[in-house]
Amino acid sequence: MLFPAATRAKLITASLALLSISLSFVNPTAAKPIASRTCASDNHTVTDPAKPGPTHYGILLPQSLAPLDVFGPLEVFQALARSTHLQLSVLARTLDPVSSGPSNDATNRYNSTFWPSFVPTHTYADDPDIQVLLVPGGGVARSPDLGPEIEYIRKVFPRLEYLITICTGSGIAAQAGVLDGHRATTNKRAWAETVQKGPNVKWVSPARWVDDGKVWSSSGVTAGIDLAFAFLEAKYPNGTAMAEFFSSVMEHERILDWRYDPYAEKLKIPPTNN
Amino acid sequence: MLFPAATRAKLITASLALLSISLSFVNPTAAKPIASRTCASDNHTVTDPAKPGPTHYGILLPQSLAPLDVFGPLEVFQALARSTHLQLSVLARTLDPVSSGPSNDATNRYNSTFWPSFVPTHTYADDPDIQVLLVPGGGVARSPDLGPEIEYIRKVFPRLEYLITICTGSGIAAQAGVLDGHRATTNKRAWAETVQKGPNVKWVSPARWVDDGKVWSSSGVTAGIDLAFAFLEAKYPNGTAMAEFFSSVMEHERILDWRYDPYAEKLKIPPTNN
Repeated sequence: MLFPAATRAKLITASLALLSISLSFVNPTAAKPIASRTCASDNHTVTDPAKPGPTHYGILLPQSLAPLDVFGPLEVFQALARSTHLQLSVLARTLDPVSSGPSNDATNRYNSTFWPSFVPTHTYADDPDIQVLLVPGGGVARSPDLGPEIEYIRKVFPRLEYLITICTGSGIAAQAGVLDGHRATTNKRAWAETVQKGPNVKWVSPARWVDDGKVWSSSGVTAGIDLAFAFLEAKYPNGTAMAEFFSSVMEHERILDWRYDPYAEKLKIPPTNN
Repeated sequence: MLFPAATRAKLITASLALLSISLSFVNPTAAKPIASRTCASDNHTVTDPAKPGPTHYGILLPQSLAPLDVFGPLEVFQALARSTHLQLSVLARTLDPVSSGPSNDATNRYNSTFWPSFVPTHTYADDPDIQVLLVPGGGVARSPDLGPEIEYIRKVFPRLEYLITICTGSGIAAQAGVLDGHRATTNKRAWAETVQKGPNVKWVSPARWVDDGKVWSSSGVTAGIDLAFAFLEAKYPNGTAMAEFFSSVMEHERILDWRYDPYAEKLKIPPTNN
């Protein structure tokens, strides 16, 4: 049995109103929701849509990087590279292939050989004229031997238009001092150890990603994909339309609200007020 | 002003009940929801939890692959490789690095140089003793020159425990004939062109991924990450606990229901009843 449409609409409206009223009496602390994954960000960078976005990206490629930190965002920018001219420089200490595997056997407890290798195009000494540098994290972030990476980030930062860190990559950038005074975030499971690498950084939690103008940073691994889409939207003409199209090609269910961060809550990281 | 807890609970219960009743009058066709992204799959493969899962994975690495098709799932299995012994063979035509870029300049309209390169460990002729083969898609799926890939898939399939296709990789496997009679899915934006490559495949839509026993297939690109987590859950002892932990490390908001597929609806792909 179906009521007429107008009657059905009235019934639904009335019950939603009652639900809304009764929910409004709930203790606001107990009912405090986490930010919605589908609401638009409220501090979205708005750039001049007529200004072309950056065309030359660099990727820092250290041993023991998390591959998805790089190739999640890169899938987004590769799609863009089919619509406009883009250049990629893949930067490492030497031109030898770089593996995602542990840098020493002691941390490879099960003797796995499951570590793909990637090909650099430039060394840090080559110092190509990049506009954007992407710094991944992963096992690398715990390396005690990051001297060349830290030195390169420190050297190139003043010339960059944007620095993008993914996951614990923000801890590497923090050690170069370039995040000092900037708002930034990181993987919530590695929160405590990462924030101590940058005591002068304005660390942000909850945050799926943080846009602080020149510095963009994401939370853990797959959060980098959402950061890349937000960056595309903010920095390129027709960015929103492209982000919608590319995400549907990638069948990526975007998180649109930079404050949506269920992991900050699960892992009981106190809000930072940054 | 706050009502006592018991009064608040009654108000909410009453309004939810009224909402439920009024929604029940809505025309069921108009209100038909898509599957929930958070409900558990109802055709989840249950394996013997005491049986160890596969330890030797192979990745097909053709020119113009979509990097995220590979490195999304691989991030999941790399995490597993830190908890148990796993081996990876990266298979290509030769041992030369393989690029994700277009295989000919005509398809690189903006002359972009934005294509990272990956290092194979074996050639198809080496034919290492893999248990699982992962076949990515991307630009490669439209290549007219897939002879060596198709020949290798056809040769190795009888010896595999599992074949995993990501995105339009199912179209490549379909051309090898190995999906004939199997249920499989693919990227919903490439649906029409992919299904015609396998007229004897039982194509499935809507589907985020499909588990057909020996053959697992995912929808577009990032759906491969959800497939990898589902595979981990189904095939390894303590798989569910590991999937929960690894997804929180990766801060990946999993889609748990294999039928959750908003893209099938958006792109108006008729349900296949497979």
